[in-house]
Amino acid sequence: MLRNRSRRKWLNPAAVAGNGLLDRRLFLRGGAAMAAAMTGYSIAKPAEAAPLTDDPWSLVPGDVTRPYGQRSSFEEKVARTLNNPNGEPRTQNARTPLHLINGTITPNGLHFVVAQSGAPDIDPDRHRLLIHGLVKKPLIFTLDALARYPMVSRMTFIECGGNGAPLFSPQPIQANLQALHGLVSSSEWTGVLLSTLLEETGLDPKAKWLIAEGADAPTLTRSVPLSKGLDDAMIALYQNGERLMPANGYPMRLLLPGWEGNMNVKWLRRIKVTDAPAMTFPESKTYAQILPNGKAYQFYFLQEVKSFITHPSPGLAMNGQGYYEISGIAYSGNGRIARVMVSADGGRTWAAAQLQEPVLSKAFTRFRVPWRWDGAPAVLQSRAWDDAGNAQPTRAEFVAQRGEIKAVPPVSAFPNQHFNGVTSWAIESKGAVKHAYR
Amino acid sequence: MLRNRSRRKWLNPAAVAGNGLLDRRLFLRGGAAMAAAMTGYSIAKPAEAAPLTDDPWSLVPGDVTRPYGQRSSFEEKVARTLNNPNGEPRTQNARTPLHLINGTITPNGLHFVVAQSGAPDIDPDRHRLLIHGLVKKPLIFTLDALARYPMVSRMTFIECGGNGAPLFSPQPIQANLQALHGLVSSSEWTGVLLSTLLEETGLDPKAKWLIAEGADAPTLTRSVPLSKGLDDAMIALYQNGERLMPANGYPMRLLLPGWEGNMNVKWLRRIKVTDAPAMTFPESKTYAQILPNGKAYQFYFLQEVKSFITHPSPGLAMNGQGYYEISGIAYSGNGRIARVMVSADGGRTWAAAQLQEPVLSKAFTRFRVPWRWDGAPAVLQSRAWDDAGNAQPTRAEFVAQRGEIKAVPPVSAFPNQHFNGVTSWAIESKGAVKHAYR
Repeated sequence: MLRNRSRRKWLNPAAVAGNGLLDRRLFLRGGAAMAAAMTGYSIAKPAEAAPLTDDPWSLVPGDVTRPYGQRSSFEEKVARTLNNPNGEPRTQNARTPLHLINGTITPNGLHFVVAQSGAPDIDPDRHRLLIHGLVKKPLIFTLDALARYPMVSRMTFIECGGNGAPLFSPQPIQANLQALHGLVSSSEWTGVLLSTLLEETGLDPKAKWLIAEGADAPTLTRSVPLSKGLDDAMIALYQNGERLMPANGYPMRLLLPGWEGNMNVKWLRRIKVTDAPAMTFPESKTYAQILPNGKAYQFYFLQEVKSFITHPSPGLAMNGQGYYEISGIAYSGNGRIARVMVSADGGRTWAAAQLQEPVLSKAFTRFRVPWRWDGAPAVLQSRAWDDAGNAQPTRAEFVAQRGEIKAVPPVSAFPNQHFNGVTSWAIESKGAVKHAYR
Repeated sequence: MLRNRSRRKWLNPAAVAGNGLLDRRLFLRGGAAMAAAMTGYSIAKPAEAAPLTDDPWSLVPGDVTRPYGQRSSFEEKVARTLNNPNGEPRTQNARTPLHLINGTITPNGLHFVVAQSGAPDIDPDRHRLLIHGLVKKPLIFTLDALARYPMVSRMTFIECGGNGAPLFSPQPIQANLQALHGLVSSSEWTGVLLSTLLEETGLDPKAKWLIAEGADAPTLTRSVPLSKGLDDAMIALYQNGERLMPANGYPMRLLLPGWEGNMNVKWLRRIKVTDAPAMTFPESKTYAQILPNGKAYQFYFLQEVKSFITHPSPGLAMNGQGYYEISGIAYSGNGRIARVMVSADGGRTWAAAQLQEPVLSKAFTRFRVPWRWDGAPAVLQSRAWDDAGNAQPTRAEFVAQRGEIKAVPPVSAFPNQHFNGVTSWAIESKGAVKHAYR
């Protein structure tokens, strides 16, 4: 092993870990040409350059600009996958194609969705938010009233508690990133801090919990500790600049940065301040994780530090040996990402990834590592740490503590929650990428 | 004047400038209740709270989640305004409704557009980028080849050099923010730095300029100093996470952070490295600003420090006296916004606005100031400074140096460029907001 690394080091002085991982500062030091010498460009012949041959689309007037732009028809494959496309009376999941997008923002049309009965078609001028219960002055807010309050904007991810659940399976399920981890997205949210509205209503000294209720047909309801409501909870009114998408809570949702997706109650119509939790269906059953010792986590709200590699990943095959960029996403409900390490040899050696600035609390952080693939089988992994000192566990560490499903149910049927272990991609010698356990 | 301010100060200890401007830290100190006591909420009667009456949309199953989400039909008024909706053979402008969106990101469907002949319908698998001229090795890149290079993401604004041109008029044109300043937008762009590709091609020592060419029917072409190409220029492949919108350059555009919009060549197909600029139509006529002394700015690329208030603004009427948030956008092609000052009395007194973190270089910065409107006429202004020490000029300072149009042409027909002076909104006693000069 060591001899192998030394040989590679000799071939490539920028190597910093096994199996071809290169120094993340390579491109700051002007090493691109050396690293990228096999990157698949073509050398232009003089006749290709001047005059340039016009492609057919350059010979006709283009499409008229519209009041609201639409994507190119060539992008239709970049779409959410739906578990219930006909809207049968059961949960609708829509998963974000994280392997087909880039950067740190999820476009609104591709934000993941979990909805118990689709999106209500709410008239924003008739919608109201009621805050009542253990308050001094129960209040009703229209959208116009909320527009006059001080607002804040923040980038934050929302992740379904069930995201990554297929990795509870004892065997690696062969599916792509969208199927395995596509229930997480990140946006810039703008709205009014809930603490501002609770200052308006005043609080009874006995107040300890908030019961948040949506205007969807099943009236999804979740209990939230008052401390979170007074910390960074927001009544979100805008998503990436425009009003929320209907499936993401139009015209308003509760935003609890870093906490389990469905607590960020969509189509929010009521917050009741109480002295005890409501013990609603989601919190007493679905999201109360049963552990190997038979006990359960109650009120386990936090989405812990996690990362995965988006490029390459299953479905994005490698196209010949040479230079590639390994790129992925890291995030933590505890705060900022402090460090991401990447391995190309299944966890034997690791290289520090470059983190795209700005690194923001409870938001997607894009990480990148240069890699020279020698065409041999390889196993790619990423592992993140947050600035509160939490480390993303390996999958083995995670299931040892949280349990494992014994059979292999369909991807959509995993009851287990909060998987944040390491994900591994096995690169085969012909360039195919498979889900693997290491 | 002073006596007037003292009286207000006595009424409201948080006042920091004339005509009701409040301390930006008010809401960090728990002063919301006091400030917002007239904000237009309703006090809930017990019967309104429990049980809550269901609205009609809560009584039926909701809309099915789709592969790519669409906005609520109630949002159709939030749209770009088009100067040429039928695609006649002349320039198409689409202006961003900056008064109807919020935060710092412009959704892709609402990003401003200037196109000389609409958007070509480019097949991304057949599109090529050629870099040639004074290089050691002319190269052709496919999208697949570019995908293997190291990428970067950055938030940055793009502004048309003609944005704000109506303010060259000798009289304030009565139009809304979208008509006056709607040719600027901000996105997260992800792609490959041009410097990385120029390392691959190598450069001839005589290289001084880049000639960037688009694949649109008119083959828009602009000259760019090589120094910008080696600094922060990017071949942008993704806009807010997804591939660029067709009207914004799909599948790739040149991104020159902080520089004049049309230099950010869309549908980029060629970069020729040269020793001299090409003196193309846009740079020899349209964007060469003629000054009062008869001389012209040649190669005036920078979009200078600028700000404007988005809320309130014309079309967003005030609804009774009391607390409001004044909110707007500031940006500079030179770097970060260092400070924004806001006035409610036409520039006599000023209060420092709160800047939304993170404050990023060459990106939109949202600023906010709390304001208690007493119902009397007021004039709102904002003024920004960047971290390179540049101050946004007043309109009078600006036109003294750059000139003024003598007649009042239609809004769309101003030839003058690079207006970055202060914009003023006059609030009338009934709450209407008008464009004014101060």
